[in-house]
Amino acid sequence: MLPTPAYDALTRTYDRLYRLGHLQALAGWDQAAKMPPKASDARAAALSEMAALLHRLRTDPALADAIARAEQEALSELQRANLREIRRDWQRANALPEALVQRRQLAASRCEHAWRTQRPANDWAGFLQNFREVVHVAREEAARLADDSGLTRYDALMERYEPGMTSASVDRLFGELRQWLPPLLDRVCARQASRPRLLQPVGPFAVEAQRRLCEQVMQLLGFDFGAGRLDVSAHPFCGGVPEDVRMTTRFTEDDFLGSLLGTVHETGHGCYEQNLPREWLGQPVAEARSMAVHESQSLSFEMQLGGHPGFVALLAPLLGAAFGAQPAFEADNLQRLMTRVEPGLIRVDADELSYPAHVMLRYEIERPLIEGQIEAEDIPALWDAKMLELLGLDTRGNYRDGPLQDVHWSEGGFGYFPCYSLGAMFAAQWFAAMRRELPELDARIGAGELAPVFDWLREHIWRQGCRWTTDELALRASGETLNPAHFKAHLEARYLG
Amino acid sequence: MLPTPAYDALTRTYDRLYRLGHLQALAGWDQAAKMPPKASDARAAALSEMAALLHRLRTDPALADAIARAEQEALSELQRANLREIRRDWQRANALPEALVQRRQLAASRCEHAWRTQRPANDWAGFLQNFREVVHVAREEAARLADDSGLTRYDALMERYEPGMTSASVDRLFGELRQWLPPLLDRVCARQASRPRLLQPVGPFAVEAQRRLCEQVMQLLGFDFGAGRLDVSAHPFCGGVPEDVRMTTRFTEDDFLGSLLGTVHETGHGCYEQNLPREWLGQPVAEARSMAVHESQSLSFEMQLGGHPGFVALLAPLLGAAFGAQPAFEADNLQRLMTRVEPGLIRVDADELSYPAHVMLRYEIERPLIEGQIEAEDIPALWDAKMLELLGLDTRGNYRDGPLQDVHWSEGGFGYFPCYSLGAMFAAQWFAAMRRELPELDARIGAGELAPVFDWLREHIWRQGCRWTTDELALRASGETLNPAHFKAHLEARYLG
Repeated sequence: MLPTPAYDALTRTYDRLYRLGHLQALAGWDQAAKMPPKASDARAAALSEMAALLHRLRTDPALADAIARAEQEALSELQRANLREIRRDWQRANALPEALVQRRQLAASRCEHAWRTQRPANDWAGFLQNFREVVHVAREEAARLADDSGLTRYDALMERYEPGMTSASVDRLFGELRQWLPPLLDRVCARQASRPRLLQPVGPFAVEAQRRLCEQVMQLLGFDFGAGRLDVSAHPFCGGVPEDVRMTTRFTEDDFLGSLLGTVHETGHGCYEQNLPREWLGQPVAEARSMAVHESQSLSFEMQLGGHPGFVALLAPLLGAAFGAQPAFEADNLQRLMTRVEPGLIRVDADELSYPAHVMLRYEIERPLIEGQIEAEDIPALWDAKMLELLGLDTRGNYRDGPLQDVHWSEGGFGYFPCYSLGAMFAAQWFAAMRRELPELDARIGAGELAPVFDWLREHIWRQGCRWTTDELALRASGETLNPAHFKAHLEARYLG
Repeated sequence: MLPTPAYDALTRTYDRLYRLGHLQALAGWDQAAKMPPKASDARAAALSEMAALLHRLRTDPALADAIARAEQEALSELQRANLREIRRDWQRANALPEALVQRRQLAASRCEHAWRTQRPANDWAGFLQNFREVVHVAREEAARLADDSGLTRYDALMERYEPGMTSASVDRLFGELRQWLPPLLDRVCARQASRPRLLQPVGPFAVEAQRRLCEQVMQLLGFDFGAGRLDVSAHPFCGGVPEDVRMTTRFTEDDFLGSLLGTVHETGHGCYEQNLPREWLGQPVAEARSMAVHESQSLSFEMQLGGHPGFVALLAPLLGAAFGAQPAFEADNLQRLMTRVEPGLIRVDADELSYPAHVMLRYEIERPLIEGQIEAEDIPALWDAKMLELLGLDTRGNYRDGPLQDVHWSEGGFGYFPCYSLGAMFAAQWFAAMRRELPELDARIGAGELAPVFDWLREHIWRQGCRWTTDELALRASGETLNPAHFKAHLEARYLG
């Protein structure tokens, strides 16, 4: 093998970034899950300092030269993939001045922290005060990234989460959805309304029992508690690092399904992170491919597996053990509960069929917000109009369950939302590929065996890290790039079959 | 006011160090209190990277020049005190090469992490494998610090915790203790043995009830839960940062007094940190004075207040509410329980009178260990001999309750132990000063008023930060430098009075 000094120097820099990023990820988790309120300013300052430091390391002028030289070195295919991701990271970082990175971090920390009390207080006006700065910074960031990349401003932000995806593609994919989903939703609602009355579980459901149940289900789903935790936060998320995955959920005593399904969702993210290629950890090529692929894992767990009769049959006895036997926990009723379609206000509680409406609504608001066609003040009126149009729901004055329900915007995470529905499409595509390869898949899941699912995902998605582009990954895993027909076929089979 | 550009530049550097140190402190707390086991290597690497980074910032050649120029600027007295502490920090950092700092951090992380399972397993041989490297690194560090400062090697390590303290002083102070403490211990034990039988609390004591009790007592002691937390770790400590104090304790169902008194102890540390001068946070002058002064706060709470009849009277009803009424919780019996003298194996559980023996034993082992007169392998035999000599206890083969009981050595914290007994002496001195200023102090504490104690400590210790040297602080607070006669008088008054 020929020596590769420039490439080697780059990997050392990225190992350092990875190690410092560990502390950043941990502090971000703690901020949401453990931090007492008065620590907010000090934590925001610490995270801003770290963001600036990492940015400085990423924009070291020596890197440009090292990347150029490394591209001339004799690299393996894996090293070449790593270099491609390093170049992408470098390019993105160098498009932004350090002061902007620090301002973004500060604005996001402040807004997110205040949001945690503003949301329960339904305080949109208070939220706006911090949120305006978040939008201001995000627009500047978008403009700079767009100048650098030649993408539109919104696409330049989306590229952070889903490289290669454009709003032209999203428009096309969501445009198709808008054609067939509303009539399907109506048909399914009508069909479900005609069936015998669904038995509702009777609470209260003790928080401690819910926590234990969530941990049991995470174990069932292959989460490794030797390398991760489950805690509580205002907005469930999966944070931490691959060696130490920090998942969160939230509990209320009058409902357990929300936290349980949220946990199943986050466990999909968690297992992806825990199974990224160990031997490359520290390098960009070992990272998760993209956020749509990430969401395809959480939705493979929550929607594809979560609504599967085989998974429901595993769940039923755990519920009885956790809360005492109830008629509502019998497998058939539980299966109907898990696949009940009912448009509601909250995205994270939405069923598979109404979920895309929540995503399209947010996409149709955040895109013009970033492009400067609307202002932060315009959001509630747009939200109300679109919820009425898409799901027939009245949200006027209810900011808590409206634009304040998600953490993304408070943190400046514009461009993320489309990934949820792209992920739902990918998840259906993965399961279709699994069934082609393993015709007995449903029988095995039906017999309580989840391992074939984990094995397929581990081999085709998790252990691939960032080795391929999203299109290449999909092609290798399933024989085609993103094809929304699988999502449609899945919904029709599950809800009308 | 004249401009002070060099001094201002230094404060900006130290603000940065403070903000990055926030992330380091948080990750250290998490490592002990929350981290899953398989994350250990990744965390150790991250903390080592951060230690190297902070070291690099501290040894930036530009700082030497800035310090020299700042010393010529027109500074206020407070700024001058800050500059004195900056110079001390700079000097210490510059005596150590970055590679050594990183090795120390790695060795400490590994040894501490393994110690957490080796201690319950009584695995001294396993501990030795990591501990040898910790000792090796500590000796190299001591040699370099000694070369730089002109101190002896052990003194150079102790200086990190208690600037100005030397082993010559410790020898003198501990030499005095060795004269009068053993006969006093015998007299008190004989006196207590002659009294009616002590009623023991009857367990089990539910962990959840203990946790709530600890939080109530922390509140009683003025801890601000808006700026701190209580969690569980193998070894209780007070970590985090002044804006976000992370205290830990540990619970067992068959005893509540250990965790309760441990919590009272750590709350003393926590209140000191929470009450450091806010307006200067970020600068060295706002930090706690020293570790002996820090321990004087934890021992002011645990020993001076903890054994006081007024505090015991506040505690009694809380115990009844937590665990149900018991004859053992009646104030008179409880007071005797809280001041029971009984030599035992565990330092953190020790009473006021036998505690110094634990400290002297460790001092007499770690000092020759650092000076190279003994090796790590020699520790158990020395431990056994000294425990027999000082407290009449047989510890052969019991590493768990012997040299494996403390976290300090595993983390390379040599030179810390003397601070506990120096702190006990200072605590007695503070209370003597309080009583001179406020003759009705005991009557007020007896009436359940703790505020006069907090007010005195806040004014004389907490809000002074690092403004004065330890000697100056003691002189200003109590009219004299460290005087162990107050400790003796306190013990005689409490146990023979």
